[in-house]
Amino acid sequence: MTSTAQNLSFVLQGIHQVKFEDRPVPELKNPHDVLINVKYTGICGSDVHYWEHGSIGQFVVKDPMVLGHESAGIITQVGSEVTTLKVGDRVAMEPGTCCRRCEPCKRGKYNLCEDMRFAATPPYDGTLAKYYVLPEDFCYKLPESMSLQEGALMEPLAVAVHIVRQAQVSPGQSVVVFGAGPVGLLCCAVATAFGASKVIAVDIQQPRLDFAQKYATTSTFMPSKVAALENAERLNKENDLGAGADVAIDASGAEPSVHTGIHVLRNGGTYVQGGMGRSEIQFPIMAACSKELTLRGSFRYGSGDYKLAVDLVSSGRVDVKSLITGTVKFEEAEEAFVGVKAGKGIKTLIAGIDA
Amino acid sequence: MTSTAQNLSFVLQGIHQVKFEDRPVPELKNPHDVLINVKYTGICGSDVHYWEHGSIGQFVVKDPMVLGHESAGIITQVGSEVTTLKVGDRVAMEPGTCCRRCEPCKRGKYNLCEDMRFAATPPYDGTLAKYYVLPEDFCYKLPESMSLQEGALMEPLAVAVHIVRQAQVSPGQSVVVFGAGPVGLLCCAVATAFGASKVIAVDIQQPRLDFAQKYATTSTFMPSKVAALENAERLNKENDLGAGADVAIDASGAEPSVHTGIHVLRNGGTYVQGGMGRSEIQFPIMAACSKELTLRGSFRYGSGDYKLAVDLVSSGRVDVKSLITGTVKFEEAEEAFVGVKAGKGIKTLIAGIDA
Amino acid sequence: MTSTAQNLSFVLQGIHQVKFEDRPVPELKNPHDVLINVKYTGICGSDVHYWEHGSIGQFVVKDPMVLGHESAGIITQVGSEVTTLKVGDRVAMEPGTCCRRCEPCKRGKYNLCEDMRFAATPPYDGTLAKYYVLPEDFCYKLPESMSLQEGALMEPLAVAVHIVRQAQVSPGQSVVVFGAGPVGLLCCAVATAFGASKVIAVDIQQPRLDFAQKYATTSTFMPSKVAALENAERLNKENDLGAGADVAIDASGAEPSVHTGIHVLRNGGTYVQGGMGRSEIQFPIMAACSKELTLRGSFRYGSGDYKLAVDLVSSGRVDVKSLITGTVKFEEAEEAFVGVKAGKGIKTLIAGIDA
Amino acid sequence: MTSTAQNLSFVLQGIHQVKFEDRPVPELKNPHDVLINVKYTGICGSDVHYWEHGSIGQFVVKDPMVLGHESAGIITQVGSEVTTLKVGDRVAMEPGTCCRRCEPCKRGKYNLCEDMRFAATPPYDGTLAKYYVLPEDFCYKLPESMSLQEGALMEPLAVAVHIVRQAQVSPGQSVVVFGAGPVGLLCCAVATAFGASKVIAVDIQQPRLDFAQKYATTSTFMPSKVAALENAERLNKENDLGAGADVAIDASGAEPSVHTGIHVLRNGGTYVQGGMGRSEIQFPIMAACSKELTLRGSFRYGSGDYKLAVDLVSSGRVDVKSLITGTVKFEEAEEAFVGVKAGKGIKTLIAGIDA
Repeated sequence: MTSTAQNLSFVLQGIHQVKFEDRPVPELKNPHDVLINVKYTGICGSDVHYWEHGSIGQFVVKDPMVLGHESAGIITQVGSEVTTLKVGDRVAMEPGTCCRRCEPCKRGKYNLCEDMRFAATPPYDGTLAKYYVLPEDFCYKLPESMSLQEGALMEPLAVAVHIVRQAQVSPGQSVVVFGAGPVGLLCCAVATAFGASKVIAVDIQQPRLDFAQKYATTSTFMPSKVAALENAERLNKENDLGAGADVAIDASGAEPSVHTGIHVLRNGGTYVQGGMGRSEIQFPIMAACSKELTLRGSFRYGSGDYKLAVDLVSSGRVDVKSLITGTVKFEEAEEAFVGVKAGKGIKTLIAGIDA
Repeated sequence: MTSTAQNLSFVLQGIHQVKFEDRPVPELKNPHDVLINVKYTGICGSDVHYWEHGSIGQFVVKDPMVLGHESAGIITQVGSEVTTLKVGDRVAMEPGTCCRRCEPCKRGKYNLCEDMRFAATPPYDGTLAKYYVLPEDFCYKLPESMSLQEGALMEPLAVAVHIVRQAQVSPGQSVVVFGAGPVGLLCCAVATAFGASKVIAVDIQQPRLDFAQKYATTSTFMPSKVAALENAERLNKENDLGAGADVAIDASGAEPSVHTGIHVLRNGGTYVQGGMGRSEIQFPIMAACSKELTLRGSFRYGSGDYKLAVDLVSSGRVDVKSLITGTVKFEEAEEAFVGVKAGKGIKTLIAGIDA
Repeated sequence: MTSTAQNLSFVLQGIHQVKFEDRPVPELKNPHDVLINVKYTGICGSDVHYWEHGSIGQFVVKDPMVLGHESAGIITQVGSEVTTLKVGDRVAMEPGTCCRRCEPCKRGKYNLCEDMRFAATPPYDGTLAKYYVLPEDFCYKLPESMSLQEGALMEPLAVAVHIVRQAQVSPGQSVVVFGAGPVGLLCCAVATAFGASKVIAVDIQQPRLDFAQKYATTSTFMPSKVAALENAERLNKENDLGAGADVAIDASGAEPSVHTGIHVLRNGGTYVQGGMGRSEIQFPIMAACSKELTLRGSFRYGSGDYKLAVDLVSSGRVDVKSLITGTVKFEEAEEAFVGVKAGKGIKTLIAGIDA
Repeated sequence: MTSTAQNLSFVLQGIHQVKFEDRPVPELKNPHDVLINVKYTGICGSDVHYWEHGSIGQFVVKDPMVLGHESAGIITQVGSEVTTLKVGDRVAMEPGTCCRRCEPCKRGKYNLCEDMRFAATPPYDGTLAKYYVLPEDFCYKLPESMSLQEGALMEPLAVAVHIVRQAQVSPGQSVVVFGAGPVGLLCCAVATAFGASKVIAVDIQQPRLDFAQKYATTSTFMPSKVAALENAERLNKENDLGAGADVAIDASGAEPSVHTGIHVLRNGGTYVQGGMGRSEIQFPIMAACSKELTLRGSFRYGSGDYKLAVDLVSSGRVDVKSLITGTVKFEEAEEAFVGVKAGKGIKTLIAGIDA
């Protein structure tokens, strides 16, 4: 089906309305840009959310938009000033490019750029296309030991790296992770790689906990239908956490998780909100205040996160292969979205179109 | 009335039940202890809260308890190993002593001590007595330029110093402070002393804003009865804060303040919860997460806070005198509590009993 | 003399060989660039060093190079995408532009950019010309209260801001500054603005100490011809520094200052090397190690430094006017270099050529 | 020989003069104290130095002093307020107790305590005795999986943990360690446990490098007799370090190591001085300054270091067993010192005397 297409793209046109559309091959506008033939793209919850709802918070899809932002591919063209990559290089693709000029960019927080252009966030097209253009410094060359499928997983792994860095996890600490979906699982793996002594995954689905236990935790916890404080006390007791956990990470976005997360922490502990849920929730603010917690949001990924993600996988410290539960052809993208929506598998990849 | 009493003390016996009781003069148990003749004691909201309700959160007054913890006095006796103080020295009294052995103590966060003994927090007696015992390192010698009345204000000033330090206020930043009571006002003054370029006080009472404006802010803001986001946008616009404020401090404990505080911040900004209110509130968690804010509680004061408080006043960088709106005799303590409860003045001091 | 010249420039051709040369007006290459009519330029020690020696360390002037990098001017043209500046705006000019793409740039340390283009550092031309081009985000609009002469001082003030930030000076600290030249004096002023309680200037010339005392220090210190440790002990004793100073800043580059700087510090104190001197010196490494000091270099200025410099002056917290000891015409630039070399004045400005 | 002795101790009386002396069993002076029957004690370079020279820097052995400070033992008596330990518990012994009251203690830097009492540092006796007294919070219970011999290694491991923490080693970083003696080797192991991607050991003895390679490094480097900069460039090239290493740790105290350490670092890198050598050396200060390095001393160990040391070994992330190259009887202590001085083995333990 794709042989004659120049740049076949998977385009969201409206709620539950997608089509394959042939678009022009994008041009390199900056001498530091490269053109990438996208090889694998993971489906993220946010892609599914746009497909289902047409918006996430203030981001509303008004014009047709290519979906996808978890990708890896092969360089097919390089700009005149590109020095670090050449045609044929296999790269993980960081899908958000920053303005490089605003205050957040210049103080090293480019994920907070005031003019970020992020793939598959309106109005910017995503990576579910034959070709995609990026500046060379947003491409991360994969070592020979890593596959392009693993490369596509660098995006959720960078999310997890950023979360664990926001939590300032250090060796010897205890870390409780709420939500054992892809990002939660990767947070467990990254926390372990950062030297955490105890990593406890919390979820309300036993199969997810079973997977987490084999994958990268020291123990798991299934909350009971009791008050958050009670669950927290049981979690701390079962895991011998004494005065409480050092770090709590929420990768679920669920209000009970947030409450339990605050209550499991020791005085002076750190809580990071990684998962997105309702815009407002009930929150135990006095517990956070009197225990003098530090709470941080975590938004996408920034300086050094993708690089470390590649390093963690290539050095064998984090395994992403076992999260890939299926790969479909590009023309089966819509079916894949349906499957992800239905909760099938952990991470589904969509293969790209060969150049 | 007090001439024959050994150690007259102002004791809370039950809700709205106080009495003056003569107690034995406390003994020095540790060779580093000193005995202090208390000279002035400020009334704090927490004292009034115990007097009115008999408890604060999990802290319940079960046995009679001496009130008061904002004090300064004169050394009347020193232990055998005391080297930094002598009889006659005038000192500000830090009213919580830590165990010095637990993990928080040993990592420099003694305000989070697992075995803190804090004055006028059950079951520990407070400082509204003729005499009080402290280890020498919790007494801060007042320079000649400072009065004992100012010394009594070191406690709320240390609270404000700790809050502003938790907020990591640095020169050139913009700081919005919610609540223009004693702690909020002192936060404004300390933020200014830390080099903040813009300090905006927010309150719903115009007279408090008027005082704040003269005292230590660059501007003030009276919220309208609109959504928090709308108030935040107006505040930012009126103060030319561009992408938002660097720091928001809540010294009010009020839910609308918390929401407005989150919304006034720029991406990557810092929010500190200084005021205590309801244990749970509705909270705009997604805004905090997607702006990647850092939120911190602030609990009492710790390493270096009292010392800096004395330094800020003695060097003229913070004025506490103008917050003292009245001084009453020791035997008028109960009337003073009634006055504070009724909102009279900013800070009322209770004079001590001469040794 | 300059009426018919397009872009008269003060060019270093060889050691002690300068000439005025008319060059083409530079073009805006990037849509974010602006063209600036340079109005005032301060003479820096590094300019004088190139003029005298033709090189600084590995930086060797091989081709003719325009001197000057401490400048302020007026915008005369803006690129198509410039949004923050307009023709006629008065700006302080940050004279080094970074690549925005390398790792240091992306982690917020653009002063450590691997491909920095810095004015009057070979092979890049400086600002002693009628016109100079900069990206808009390296220009800092001067508030009405600030003169263009003050604007030219933003460069050495940004150097001092960076040094004091590297030293992490915080309120209440004691800071000893070695060298009372322009940068040392500005370090004293910035440390004061950052809330330091004691700022002690050290120099071997009494007139410089006299100026420092009036300008921005709490005391001054003239070293004796004794061992560094002995000077350090006297300094600490005279200034009642107890266990030692919190921070030492060297803005002299002299070996005895470095030694005294290490020895004045308390356990855990911070030392910053701001001044450049010999590439290797004798160094008291065991004292630094056993006191567990933190030592940092400080190189130029980076994220937020220029902005804070402008803020410190416009808010009245730092005075730069009193450092300006003379202003000469553009055509007297060479004489001005001779004067600076001879130690005349504190900061000499060279006026620019009107557009 | 020891059956009738109460508290046989190995006492340094003068240079190369030691004797076994029976001393009274020490008493518990504080209710938080415990009495420990010392079971194994490692010999440290500092013990040997006192034995050979009678002093280290300003610390001079004037009175007879028991040697030894790397010990583990079994609790034989507990004070009245001890809650975390009981008779029979096996513990690693942290041999320096702090005053808990000075500023460094209260800001969490108790290793910088102004009144530290450190075993086998004059005038305080060491642990090479049958019994030793410590506060309970300076004893670290060994999990069943750890032997008392491993427990004795917690002291040098805590030194290495402190060094690596001072270096702020984080996952993905490259770390160059100079000196492959016990502390250098342990630094390599700890850096690996902290997630460093590349750990390069540098030494001038091939057998030490061979051991290091098997033990805990990604590669090793033998310096040539060329300039430090040249060695640094070769090291960086061989290890593909691009712009330079993130971290350099000196555990050798040798001047050429210090120079090479500075030169291997990238802009903004971190250097930690862990090894003690000459009090002053020639130092490449301008390289440190213009690369804006952070340099830190590392002195003993502090908050959390011993706890993490035990955790790293009990969790299998650091191996200390393979460093133990011999164990001798208590009465052979002097011969053991002679052996260590001669460079025999990596770490020699002296067995204690059974209670």
